[in-house]
Amino acid sequence: MRSLQITDKQEQALQIVDADMPEMPANSVLVKLKAAALNRRDYWISIGKYPGIRPGVILGSDGCGIVEKANSEQGQAFVGKEVIINPNINWGNDPKVQSADYTILGMPVNGTFAEYIAVPVDRIHEKPSHLSVEEAAALPLAGLTAYRALFTHGQVDADKKVFISGAGGGVAQYAFLFSRAVGATTYISSGQAEKVEKFASIGAAKAYNYKDDGWIKQAAKDSGGIDVVIDSAGGDQLNDFLKVLNPAGKIVFYGATTGLPSKIDLYRMFWSQATLQGSTMGNDQEFEAMIEFVKKHRIKPIVEPSIAFDQAHTAFEMLADNKQFGKVVLKMDE
Amino acid sequence: MRSLQITDKQEQALQIVDADMPEMPANSVLVKLKAAALNRRDYWISIGKYPGIRPGVILGSDGCGIVEKANSEQGQAFVGKEVIINPNINWGNDPKVQSADYTILGMPVNGTFAEYIAVPVDRIHEKPSHLSVEEAAALPLAGLTAYRALFTHGQVDADKKVFISGAGGGVAQYAFLFSRAVGATTYISSGQAEKVEKFASIGAAKAYNYKDDGWIKQAAKDSGGIDVVIDSAGGDQLNDFLKVLNPAGKIVFYGATTGLPSKIDLYRMFWSQATLQGSTMGNDQEFEAMIEFVKKHRIKPIVEPSIAFDQAHTAFEMLADNKQFGKVVLKMDE
Repeated sequence: MRSLQITDKQEQALQIVDADMPEMPANSVLVKLKAAALNRRDYWISIGKYPGIRPGVILGSDGCGIVEKANSEQGQAFVGKEVIINPNINWGNDPKVQSADYTILGMPVNGTFAEYIAVPVDRIHEKPSHLSVEEAAALPLAGLTAYRALFTHGQVDADKKVFISGAGGGVAQYAFLFSRAVGATTYISSGQAEKVEKFASIGAAKAYNYKDDGWIKQAAKDSGGIDVVIDSAGGDQLNDFLKVLNPAGKIVFYGATTGLPSKIDLYRMFWSQATLQGSTMGNDQEFEAMIEFVKKHRIKPIVEPSIAFDQAHTAFEMLADNKQFGKVVLKMDE
Repeated sequence: MRSLQITDKQEQALQIVDADMPEMPANSVLVKLKAAALNRRDYWISIGKYPGIRPGVILGSDGCGIVEKANSEQGQAFVGKEVIINPNINWGNDPKVQSADYTILGMPVNGTFAEYIAVPVDRIHEKPSHLSVEEAAALPLAGLTAYRALFTHGQVDADKKVFISGAGGGVAQYAFLFSRAVGATTYISSGQAEKVEKFASIGAAKAYNYKDDGWIKQAAKDSGGIDVVIDSAGGDQLNDFLKVLNPAGKIVFYGATTGLPSKIDLYRMFWSQATLQGSTMGNDQEFEAMIEFVKKHRIKPIVEPSIAFDQAHTAFEMLADNKQFGKVVLKMDE
């Protein structure tokens, strides 16, 4: 079967290569993939900036497909059904944090950028019926990360004012959609004018270009104070967010793409009882809850027009350029 | 009556001066003070390093005394009784954070370093019977701050491993006593060898001198990972604490006496789902819960031999030298 792999660690050779059909351990299902979405994680792996990269592993954390085979009674019930895959592997028993054995589908374990994948039956969930296979494929990793950051840590509800930074990103998109779905007043920032405009047009209370001078003061003025910031940029901007936060406010962050802040204003933090909360992915209960949430609120993931699997390089270039508005999805041949 | 005030803001002249007897607004009680404890806050005010210092205000947040007069039925029930005073003023309606009107007894409102004080009747609580007036006076501000940091934010219980930095401080002392009382495994650090020894002798699992090379690595090894750090030092040591934290661990801090960290390791924080939580004082419900906790566990505050009110300058010098092991308490004349 065809699959997308890093074939050489030194040269970061991302190639479509032939791979053996996956073996099926006990209690697994064989899924013929219909669509698979890219995450920033795949991009970091493709440019060698991720821990533990191994050549010869099929990339891809997100996928939607049809179950072709199963070797357990539980799995049989899914045969012929369209499913999405929970990319968590070995979260462990503590809902608060992943175990030391935790990994994510698509490195070091073979992932979804292939014609077929075998996964344990407890990793699959029926595709929500209101979603296309492309939309469903775009949901798992980013939706789960957003759900945990927003609800488990941020405790966002209709009474909250939420700020989502870098709203063009995959996780940030879901944070925006989920935050809007519960009725929270939701502000966003982006570094690209066209994304700022789009978010303003789809329900952002206000949208800011973070390259504009004085945008953060304007956001403070417009909002009258933010309760929860969802961030993945990190850097010195964190101190700006601390200034905009309401008392007892929270900054929940799941990345630090602009690096570490040169300081952090602890004085302001302790007097205002502020929280700086790290977050990543989410546990299996949160994955199920996220799927139910998406069904209940009929959330439609925002996706770019899908790209044929053979053109996977184009998809990775889109992430490099960072111009896409929605998730980038690979479509497998029918 | 005699009272301790900053009489001149420029010269920071801390003097015992004669003051009018306090007036009694509606629903207040007149307390004849028996003992009053110093907090680091009083020291910062005495050296001009606190926001909003005004000359002519009686200092002091902590006090224990006997109710002499009341102008309400509720207050009458306390006449002749020994009470401690809740130093919170206008916390407000949100248990999570103080209101913008919040202040602490002893600046800008007249405080406990005087022969008498009038306070609203809802600020007083009967002195726990197992405490001397000196011990009771030493409890309010620091006990409340420790209670909130440890339990409300840190959620410390018998299963937790807790690290308390700078354990010679007033709040840290209570954090230690309260943490031990619930059965948590409790580690401490201090910069003074004699304090390290004393804490080791009164129940610290291990006590470290933070001036020793490699102490933090030793603490990591001894503890096998810390669940909750209670800190008021801030500075670059925060990154050391992040390394010692267990996954989903928390650093709760109520000060930053060594300044701001030059960076903060966000990468470690998000992957380990760590929390950096600011905290200060506590609400009125927490004050009541803290008093009940002290009664239930028969907590005995650690106090230095008390100092006569006339010798208040000596008490402030003790805080400047930072050699005291327990709280520094002023004893009023009988």
